[in-house]
Amino acid sequence: MLPTVDDAILPIQMPEHDTLSGPALLRIDGDRLWASLMALAEVGPAPGGGSHRVALTDADRDGQALFAGWAEAAGCTVSRDRIGNLFAERPGTDLSRPPVLVGSHLDTQPNGGRFDGTFGALAALEIVRTLNDAGVQTLAPVVIVSWSNEEGARFPLATTGSAVFCGALALEDALAQRALDGPSYGDELERLGLAGALPAGGRTVDAYFEGHIEQGPRLEEAGAVIGVVLGGQGLRALRATITGSESHSGTTPMEHRRDALVTAARIVEGANRFGRESEGTLVTVGQLTVEPNSRSVIPGRVELVIDIRNPDAAALDRAATALVGQVRGIVEADGLELDVVETLNIDPVPFDAECNRAIEEAASALGHASLPLVSGAVHDAMYLARLCPTALMFVPCRDGISHHPAEYAAPGDVAAGCDVLLQAVLGRAGVATA
Amino acid sequence: MLPTVDDAILPIQMPEHDTLSGPALLRIDGDRLWASLMALAEVGPAPGGGSHRVALTDADRDGQALFAGWAEAAGCTVSRDRIGNLFAERPGTDLSRPPVLVGSHLDTQPNGGRFDGTFGALAALEIVRTLNDAGVQTLAPVVIVSWSNEEGARFPLATTGSAVFCGALALEDALAQRALDGPSYGDELERLGLAGALPAGGRTVDAYFEGHIEQGPRLEEAGAVIGVVLGGQGLRALRATITGSESHSGTTPMEHRRDALVTAARIVEGANRFGRESEGTLVTVGQLTVEPNSRSVIPGRVELVIDIRNPDAAALDRAATALVGQVRGIVEADGLELDVVETLNIDPVPFDAECNRAIEEAASALGHASLPLVSGAVHDAMYLARLCPTALMFVPCRDGISHHPAEYAAPGDVAAGCDVLLQAVLGRAGVATA
Repeated sequence: MLPTVDDAILPIQMPEHDTLSGPALLRIDGDRLWASLMALAEVGPAPGGGSHRVALTDADRDGQALFAGWAEAAGCTVSRDRIGNLFAERPGTDLSRPPVLVGSHLDTQPNGGRFDGTFGALAALEIVRTLNDAGVQTLAPVVIVSWSNEEGARFPLATTGSAVFCGALALEDALAQRALDGPSYGDELERLGLAGALPAGGRTVDAYFEGHIEQGPRLEEAGAVIGVVLGGQGLRALRATITGSESHSGTTPMEHRRDALVTAARIVEGANRFGRESEGTLVTVGQLTVEPNSRSVIPGRVELVIDIRNPDAAALDRAATALVGQVRGIVEADGLELDVVETLNIDPVPFDAECNRAIEEAASALGHASLPLVSGAVHDAMYLARLCPTALMFVPCRDGISHHPAEYAAPGDVAAGCDVLLQAVLGRAGVATA
Repeated sequence: MLPTVDDAILPIQMPEHDTLSGPALLRIDGDRLWASLMALAEVGPAPGGGSHRVALTDADRDGQALFAGWAEAAGCTVSRDRIGNLFAERPGTDLSRPPVLVGSHLDTQPNGGRFDGTFGALAALEIVRTLNDAGVQTLAPVVIVSWSNEEGARFPLATTGSAVFCGALALEDALAQRALDGPSYGDELERLGLAGALPAGGRTVDAYFEGHIEQGPRLEEAGAVIGVVLGGQGLRALRATITGSESHSGTTPMEHRRDALVTAARIVEGANRFGRESEGTLVTVGQLTVEPNSRSVIPGRVELVIDIRNPDAAALDRAATALVGQVRGIVEADGLELDVVETLNIDPVPFDAECNRAIEEAASALGHASLPLVSGAVHDAMYLARLCPTALMFVPCRDGISHHPAEYAAPGDVAAGCDVLLQAVLGRAGVATA
């Protein structure tokens, strides 16, 4: 039997601080959380104040070691599974209950920020520290988790750890993936001592909560502090290869040209126009390479990737089909050749309504404005949602900037988010009466 | 006193083959020329039947060694200057006359063709072989030349050898240029034994003739065999850097984006439209790089190069100014930032009217249709034109394709071009009466 929504904002009596009328809610220590975030950011420092802890590098290992040390100091039992996911368990009093997982990831993009991933992981640690300080026992175990290779910067399969844990990716395929610089995931896990003994996945989980920075401007624009993420939008990626004819830019008359870059430019503009004219669909060409990419040679070949996102599965299907048609029309009109391959197809993921209500009501009880949102980015929580009731909660990040040293979340917002997560986790895990 | 145009098609009596009515023109041996072309193409063979003899590599040295051996066997004195230009001199009878130079280059693009450069160099050798066979002495020396690093594939300064020879590039700057893979030009010349004792340039030259494949479709379209190149068109290159804002393709609303690639796409299309609508101007974006070039990141920065060519200096100026204005307008309308730098500015080069007339009249006397053309590509002859009366003559290349293993010139056209060059060289050098 799942706890009811009302449990989720269970008011916890705080004997020492009970100065408000009525029972006060348990609060985390915002200063301690901020200090931990800043200390972790110094492991693998990046120019401009960011962090550079790409998954399965020495810096990632060092960041995980600092984090694991803190979790052990907070009384947790630290373990790892075979794909390198890190778990820090605080036992519950009811041995029959499966754990409530809470966390995110500790790896970053190259020259990334201080908050993407680390906010969620350190908020989970701060929840445990707060429960310890308040002497609160939970019925279900609370397990802090840091998923392996969320970013997919060095090893190509983003969200490797959560995808394997949830059965969406085979362990052997995940271990066999190769880094841009050569070694396999399995070899690097071994080298760094990050391969654990636990099986990857197969565990019964009561629920999963993840806190994350928004990586977009909506909360800031709305003046809200808490984003209640209704779902992760679906994603299709199309790789289009346009083939024309390489020839000399000084000798080939304009009317004889089969310039793959001119046709690609029409595709890029058309894809952007499609996105601007479609309610709810985001369309991006982020990747484009020109061959031979020489000033004096008319491009013979261009490869580009169109990234299409929409929270609604049917609308996403329609958009992808329409865009393929549009691309074909442009290439045919120009008389060039086209090859299109779908390289990614992720269905939209709805998060758990009950867990979301717990987040929303905790925000309300704590006096923080909340906003329902759809997650544009891919998150570990999107895989956990296949396994157990899952909620993803956002806090604002300044100007929507992430994956960059300028990424910033205000201390007050970080603390507010952690307070909300604490209430949601407590509601789910249940408080043991002494 | 220069020879008159009439000298240029001086009918040479051929005692053995005089079967035509009236004096027959001396003819080269087309089979021998073709066999030499095919033999040289095998030095540094490339997949698909091309050649790969990038300047100052072992293959370039081996190609030059084969060529120099043939020239010595034809009685020439072979020498090199300090920038690696190769000369093979056939003496004249009048010691007061400066030499007539004829040739091209032996280096190729990576995986290049069998004719670009080698046609002109081997045609020069065939002229000497033909004069030897016919026992014809010239008044002025005839010097076969192969210029160093015409292609600029490994070392960046294309036409290095001819530019230094003609004083357009300082010897020390040419020797100091670095290969993509590290070593300096001077070091590689030494390593390969291609640095000669002769000073680079400073020599009085009577005239220069260069034969080359057209690298364009005009001759083929017109059904002409001989291209009389009126001049080399001018060239401006503009490097534009467009800066927007990097952000997440899954979270950034379409209306918030500052996508540098979308703006760059408008520039590419606009530049192409400008070229199609302007008589005589060729406009190409051959080079474009996207940062960070990741599927899920909206491009923050794009760098592209616009290559603009026109045979008329004033029209070229107007086109470059108009294109800069067009680019600024596009970037401003999109609210992004722009940096534009002119990276190349080569004025149009006219070739010598008298030398051109000699080419045209020789073609006519030999029964080959000729066509006046402008050279779109840069050629060594464009530097020689600063030093001495110069003509550049084209033969057709199939489908206008060059810098590719599919590059092809028909044996009959190759022979016809060499016959025409022979007459032009003879007219300029003058025939010594026995």
